[in-house]
Amino acid sequence: MAAERIQHSCALFGIAGHESAAYLTYLGLYALQHRGQESAGIVTSDGERTHIHKALGLVNDVFQPHLLEKLTGSSAIGHTRYSTTGSLTLLNTQPIRVSYRAGTLSIAHNGNLTNTPYLRSRMEQEGSIFQTTMDTEIILHLTARSHKTALEDRIVEALEQVKGAYSLLLLSEEALVAVRDPSGFRPLCLGEYEGAPMIASESCAFDILGGEYLRDIRAGEMLIIRNGNMESLTLPISGSETPCVFEFVYFSRPDSRIYGEKVDKVRRRLGKHLAREHPAEADIVISVPDSSNTATLGYARESGIRFEIGLIRNHYVGRTFIQPGQERRDHDVRVKFNPVEGVLKDKRVVVVDDSIVRGTTSRKLIGMIRDAGAAQVHVRITCPPVAWPCYYGVDIPTSEELIASHKNVEEIREYIGADSLGYLSLEGMLSAVGVDRAMCHACYSGEYPVPPDDKLGKQVLEE
Amino acid sequence: MAAERIQHSCALFGIAGHESAAYLTYLGLYALQHRGQESAGIVTSDGERTHIHKALGLVNDVFQPHLLEKLTGSSAIGHTRYSTTGSLTLLNTQPIRVSYRAGTLSIAHNGNLTNTPYLRSRMEQEGSIFQTTMDTEIILHLTARSHKTALEDRIVEALEQVKGAYSLLLLSEEALVAVRDPSGFRPLCLGEYEGAPMIASESCAFDILGGEYLRDIRAGEMLIIRNGNMESLTLPISGSETPCVFEFVYFSRPDSRIYGEKVDKVRRRLGKHLAREHPAEADIVISVPDSSNTATLGYARESGIRFEIGLIRNHYVGRTFIQPGQERRDHDVRVKFNPVEGVLKDKRVVVVDDSIVRGTTSRKLIGMIRDAGAAQVHVRITCPPVAWPCYYGVDIPTSEELIASHKNVEEIREYIGADSLGYLSLEGMLSAVGVDRAMCHACYSGEYPVPPDDKLGKQVLEE
Amino acid sequence: MAAERIQHSCALFGIAGHESAAYLTYLGLYALQHRGQESAGIVTSDGERTHIHKALGLVNDVFQPHLLEKLTGSSAIGHTRYSTTGSLTLLNTQPIRVSYRAGTLSIAHNGNLTNTPYLRSRMEQEGSIFQTTMDTEIILHLTARSHKTALEDRIVEALEQVKGAYSLLLLSEEALVAVRDPSGFRPLCLGEYEGAPMIASESCAFDILGGEYLRDIRAGEMLIIRNGNMESLTLPISGSETPCVFEFVYFSRPDSRIYGEKVDKVRRRLGKHLAREHPAEADIVISVPDSSNTATLGYARESGIRFEIGLIRNHYVGRTFIQPGQERRDHDVRVKFNPVEGVLKDKRVVVVDDSIVRGTTSRKLIGMIRDAGAAQVHVRITCPPVAWPCYYGVDIPTSEELIASHKNVEEIREYIGADSLGYLSLEGMLSAVGVDRAMCHACYSGEYPVPPDDKLGKQVLEE
Amino acid sequence: MAAERIQHSCALFGIAGHESAAYLTYLGLYALQHRGQESAGIVTSDGERTHIHKALGLVNDVFQPHLLEKLTGSSAIGHTRYSTTGSLTLLNTQPIRVSYRAGTLSIAHNGNLTNTPYLRSRMEQEGSIFQTTMDTEIILHLTARSHKTALEDRIVEALEQVKGAYSLLLLSEEALVAVRDPSGFRPLCLGEYEGAPMIASESCAFDILGGEYLRDIRAGEMLIIRNGNMESLTLPISGSETPCVFEFVYFSRPDSRIYGEKVDKVRRRLGKHLAREHPAEADIVISVPDSSNTATLGYARESGIRFEIGLIRNHYVGRTFIQPGQERRDHDVRVKFNPVEGVLKDKRVVVVDDSIVRGTTSRKLIGMIRDAGAAQVHVRITCPPVAWPCYYGVDIPTSEELIASHKNVEEIREYIGADSLGYLSLEGMLSAVGVDRAMCHACYSGEYPVPPDDKLGKQVLEE
Repeated sequence: MAAERIQHSCALFGIAGHESAAYLTYLGLYALQHRGQESAGIVTSDGERTHIHKALGLVNDVFQPHLLEKLTGSSAIGHTRYSTTGSLTLLNTQPIRVSYRAGTLSIAHNGNLTNTPYLRSRMEQEGSIFQTTMDTEIILHLTARSHKTALEDRIVEALEQVKGAYSLLLLSEEALVAVRDPSGFRPLCLGEYEGAPMIASESCAFDILGGEYLRDIRAGEMLIIRNGNMESLTLPISGSETPCVFEFVYFSRPDSRIYGEKVDKVRRRLGKHLAREHPAEADIVISVPDSSNTATLGYARESGIRFEIGLIRNHYVGRTFIQPGQERRDHDVRVKFNPVEGVLKDKRVVVVDDSIVRGTTSRKLIGMIRDAGAAQVHVRITCPPVAWPCYYGVDIPTSEELIASHKNVEEIREYIGADSLGYLSLEGMLSAVGVDRAMCHACYSGEYPVPPDDKLGKQVLEE
Repeated sequence: MAAERIQHSCALFGIAGHESAAYLTYLGLYALQHRGQESAGIVTSDGERTHIHKALGLVNDVFQPHLLEKLTGSSAIGHTRYSTTGSLTLLNTQPIRVSYRAGTLSIAHNGNLTNTPYLRSRMEQEGSIFQTTMDTEIILHLTARSHKTALEDRIVEALEQVKGAYSLLLLSEEALVAVRDPSGFRPLCLGEYEGAPMIASESCAFDILGGEYLRDIRAGEMLIIRNGNMESLTLPISGSETPCVFEFVYFSRPDSRIYGEKVDKVRRRLGKHLAREHPAEADIVISVPDSSNTATLGYARESGIRFEIGLIRNHYVGRTFIQPGQERRDHDVRVKFNPVEGVLKDKRVVVVDDSIVRGTTSRKLIGMIRDAGAAQVHVRITCPPVAWPCYYGVDIPTSEELIASHKNVEEIREYIGADSLGYLSLEGMLSAVGVDRAMCHACYSGEYPVPPDDKLGKQVLEE
Repeated sequence: MAAERIQHSCALFGIAGHESAAYLTYLGLYALQHRGQESAGIVTSDGERTHIHKALGLVNDVFQPHLLEKLTGSSAIGHTRYSTTGSLTLLNTQPIRVSYRAGTLSIAHNGNLTNTPYLRSRMEQEGSIFQTTMDTEIILHLTARSHKTALEDRIVEALEQVKGAYSLLLLSEEALVAVRDPSGFRPLCLGEYEGAPMIASESCAFDILGGEYLRDIRAGEMLIIRNGNMESLTLPISGSETPCVFEFVYFSRPDSRIYGEKVDKVRRRLGKHLAREHPAEADIVISVPDSSNTATLGYARESGIRFEIGLIRNHYVGRTFIQPGQERRDHDVRVKFNPVEGVLKDKRVVVVDDSIVRGTTSRKLIGMIRDAGAAQVHVRITCPPVAWPCYYGVDIPTSEELIASHKNVEEIREYIGADSLGYLSLEGMLSAVGVDRAMCHACYSGEYPVPPDDKLGKQVLEE
Repeated sequence: MAAERIQHSCALFGIAGHESAAYLTYLGLYALQHRGQESAGIVTSDGERTHIHKALGLVNDVFQPHLLEKLTGSSAIGHTRYSTTGSLTLLNTQPIRVSYRAGTLSIAHNGNLTNTPYLRSRMEQEGSIFQTTMDTEIILHLTARSHKTALEDRIVEALEQVKGAYSLLLLSEEALVAVRDPSGFRPLCLGEYEGAPMIASESCAFDILGGEYLRDIRAGEMLIIRNGNMESLTLPISGSETPCVFEFVYFSRPDSRIYGEKVDKVRRRLGKHLAREHPAEADIVISVPDSSNTATLGYARESGIRFEIGLIRNHYVGRTFIQPGQERRDHDVRVKFNPVEGVLKDKRVVVVDDSIVRGTTSRKLIGMIRDAGAAQVHVRITCPPVAWPCYYGVDIPTSEELIASHKNVEEIREYIGADSLGYLSLEGMLSAVGVDRAMCHACYSGEYPVPPDDKLGKQVLEE
């Protein structure tokens, strides 16, 4: 149940040189809604002025026709955000737009910086003020302080000072800039629609427009789109590419390409490798819908066990489901998933899922599957146990909450009540993804490609 | 694309003798949200007084904790409703509660009466007033006019005068009554939770509570639950059972039982029969998610063609998606579905769907599948062409809008751009459902089990 | 402080034969907002169909431009309502529109029937159902049951059966009908705007349009406006005119005419009579704004004591003022009124008010005036003590809450902390109003012109 | 009609050392709502952390009980704001809170800086970024950049660099600071409630709590409240006191003290001087309620002409009054004011008002008074013609819109349709206010005490 608590921090979409820039960005954010549901925002530029609208809520709620109409101009960047409850304020929504020496600059950021405390402290010593709790604000400060003339040079100067994960879109009156950090932690790709270049976190945002995917933005690449021209630079910052493997396992939509790969294909291979590493004597294999569907197909194909739809997901579940304190039952899980008794009854069942976080949801789900008559329940996870925090933009629960940080596989199996439990090995996972590249797997292995300076950010602003 | 326009009219849920009656009804309606998204309402009885809350919106939006708390009492009935735009007013939400000689009476109705114009006219001649445009109000009038003493006798007297489709829940201060019309057009079943009897349109509402399915309410059966006792009567109204077959094809959730059958099993058989009647030379078979998923598995199994996930559905699409007039593209379909290129590329694809209504959505979808590289697209529909209106509670577009009412199969195939198109035959469909019972298939065949008195209801109230 | 709890039940406005009927009704309701702030509604007729919109809230909130535009047609009736908290539901908003034999009929009602329990019980015995808790629904039932052909005849037959207070506007597809009960309890007057006849509770609604006041609707008169013609009938119901005197004292706006009299003039005379009956040795006389302003001018003129503005009213106070439980201070009064120290300091002050209901507000207000430095505070009330409930449409607190029902004048004076307290006598009040007519003064005298059948209505519906 | 367009920019309220700090600030803002209706905000400090809530809307709408409860701590500052439509965004609401070297700093500002373009440009050259369009942000930047240790020293260093009008409240974790600029353009006063010091724009905010007014904050004074101690400093900035005279004429509530004077007394003297300068042969004198009420009493007293209530104001008028394009009538004025015919009929009327801005409202109002039967209408304004923009925090329309900037008195009289028109002279106004002090009267005279560096601020951020 990645859905238990692992949450992403955002989606990016940008387009330059199209008269319907705001509307197309709205559509693009729609396709990327799965990456962040707490807020949405768009900034446009008409060449002379920039226009912004952002608010808490789903893309669907934030943008009304009359609001989209005000966002004039042929360039736009947009953002959707997930944020932890504490800082769920409008001030922390993105894009952030500021005014500085050269006009306005707007920024949308996916990822997390790892030297935030140091930078923030240094800048505060120099007299800077911060109005948000987002590390993104730091990049704006650094860009504004640069004495370089060209926007891209100022941005480069700023990025030379930060460390960590950043896929960025920046918009000024005259240019749209896309950047991916040298490690390429978070995805970012380039597409085209009716001749206009587009940048998005995942390629499914291009498809919603009927646009075309061109290529991945390279790790360490900066694209500058200005006056209809697009220029590509390489950031003068050393670093080797280690994109986040978890994007393949859970976050990205299966119809997307990320890192140049089709997520669907990778996820299917994860299922196949999982079947090889952890076969099962079983009658059927089912998915925990919808994020595990494709991997489950892979498991079924490799193992020869019959693929079935054994759990129905209720897509009407909203954020405000009422769970009265006195009702200690498993309604929270039942309201989301319902087992199909006719499928499960008397069957030995393999359940393929993409993660176990705290274990409580898995436990309830397995209980429901058993109640529906399953003879055996064999749980197979398409990745290794998640046991380490992420410093690069994924919101993973604290170690105390992560079941894998204090229980071994057998203990987890016992806790969730499965007949057997198999996690895909780190090697298996990486092999399934493709052998030709290094990836960040710190949440599984604790091996951090970019060491965080300090694990706890200074946080003085709150609601 | 049943999603194109065929809409249901409502869901029912009731429970008697449980201290958390309102909360459990709220959960039950949650599970039944797919049957109606326009409004939701609950009435409870504490034995002396009844309490009501209803409003436009999803179950999730209509009920807040403080509102649920006001709905005290151990008996409750609830309703969710789909309604056509014109009459989308709070006055037309259900349950309707009225005061009459014997106290209050509340009613929740799934179905449509067929002698409404006659009855309404007769009652208006006698001086009755109507405050809603719902035929349900007629049942309340008739019940109140009855000179019988017992509630059930009054209801029987009322129902002897109406014709058509009615699955009903009624709640007074002292009793909960459930009724299904002698034709049994719409489903209704009985369950139990912690000793308290429950009634619901589909059994998935019992599962959400962790309750138990007991049996179908029989066509023509009336259940009276009073003081902890449950009595079953048979309505003294002639009629032979002809439940709606479309419930199996499209409306009901696959994890439900209706008419005593598991929807999942039936839908799988629909897919198998379809594969036999309309085989295809193809590489893969895909579903239009989510309603066709199970039937697609059946088609795959029977045909031996590989099941694949070739379309991704975006579940964040809300009602207010902005579609600017000037943008004539297929964004409305793209925002909902995205083809998985890696799956479809160069493949001969069978697409299994549960209906073609106007044909425009199918046409766009097939175009998208071709754009994703499919070599061939073979469309298979799990039922015959829908060509006739429904008078028993399903909102089907007018004949002019129904593509099958003015085009034959070959013309439809050409319009939607498929390489081949196969509809399951009426016989195949009925055989898949199970041979032991008659069913209503009027929307396919034009054979109406209960002839409507008059096809156009008098409608003088509007917003 | 009439503001303490005496509340009106509604305002009426209607217009026939003007193409902007809905918009003009909206304006008219705006002017009458002081008579009811809980809900607002308008029904229009375009000659063939009627259109309705109503909701909880101020006129300003309920009607948006796009909603007004839907209310097509050249005839309209509108209503604003105050209602006690318990029944504050949309179902109880007005106008109520029903469908019956002859089409639709909509009704807006100011007043209260006094034989509701009898009528409702009789009609329920005959099989009627009630969907609201408003006695107004009874009039619709009775009208629909009439076997007469003409709308006006049916209404007359209905009204022959009811007793009590009713100023009514009714709208069908083809006619607008205005009626005032034979006692003429509640006001209703006739005006004209650009050739179109208007009916309103108070004439200030005509002024807002720039229209003209023509005359009072007579007690027992029925006006039928149809096809551009206006006919006047006299109800064949005996009764002598006894309009509510409290309308003059408190409810109506001073710029209105009611009962053919200018409220402003009457209220000034109330102040003068009060000065004669209860003179005071004082330096200044101040008003409790705004309802007592005019009477205070009368008191000042008659007594020769200087008129001053000694209390400032905060008009931004809304319904949801937060008053924490632990704060037992007088913030609820202070947030509304602030004494002007420079005016009050060391002065002997006469405070003119229009009523004392529970006494708590007066007590706090007098405390504040003393704290501002007043040497003496002499309270003068422009009517006798309110000690009896009203059965004709004014919401007066129960006897237990009415200070005058259990304390004499000296005890009240002591409770509120005034140096002296003088109520205008019944004779003085009636004389001020004008000697030529009987009026209802039951809330002061307990003499009820139309005896209520039963003081407690049967109320089985609640939220 | 100052109400036509002259708008204030804000109100301030602060309190230190009271356990109900947030609630008392809420009450204080309630009393000051007349100074700004677009947004409201409160920041509290509990000694270790600060807490903020702010939103668009009236105080009443912005603060709900559960939101107030979160604002813990014994110190608080609050703000209400009027803002022109263009910049009506949440980002521009106050207080602004930022994080900087020493923790957090929050600021609430009434007034406008006059060297904003210079400062902003200088700071942007140095690399600063601005997230709002408010000059207030500059003060925060300057304070954060100061190398001084003590908060008050940093603030002083910041203020030494700014020019113009600023009444300020600042809140850190450990101190509350109140400052008034050396010119004392905007009011600010000190009070006490239950031993806790309070600061407010006007003293009526103290009265709502039952607190005590102590004294004016002096022009150029800074108060530091820390650990229960209050220290007063004088800003080391030269400047002579010139408080805004318009506060007396229009903005402040009559029950307030500002600049140590009771507004009520001053306004009465304005009326008296006006009567002496511009007597009239008339029967009655009326006010345009409510802002001119007190001055009208002064005019009446001095002239001996009878004071009457000739216009009734509708206090239910909200922001969203619908004025259809095709309706070119005077409904916008009629919906707000209604003439009392009985008072005006055949009378020679003096109308006292506090300003004529564009003249259109006055023209309609005078037309209405004539329609009500007034024989003559003599308009008297309690100040000179407003003909110049304000650079110190009052939002006055542009010169093109100001009728007095392009018409002389006789032309204005003719335009508005008055029989005579008299403006109080500058000398008369200043004399009425009190001879012992210089005041800013730039909007009347064009004499600006602090010359603005540049009349047009750079504004690059917009919605």
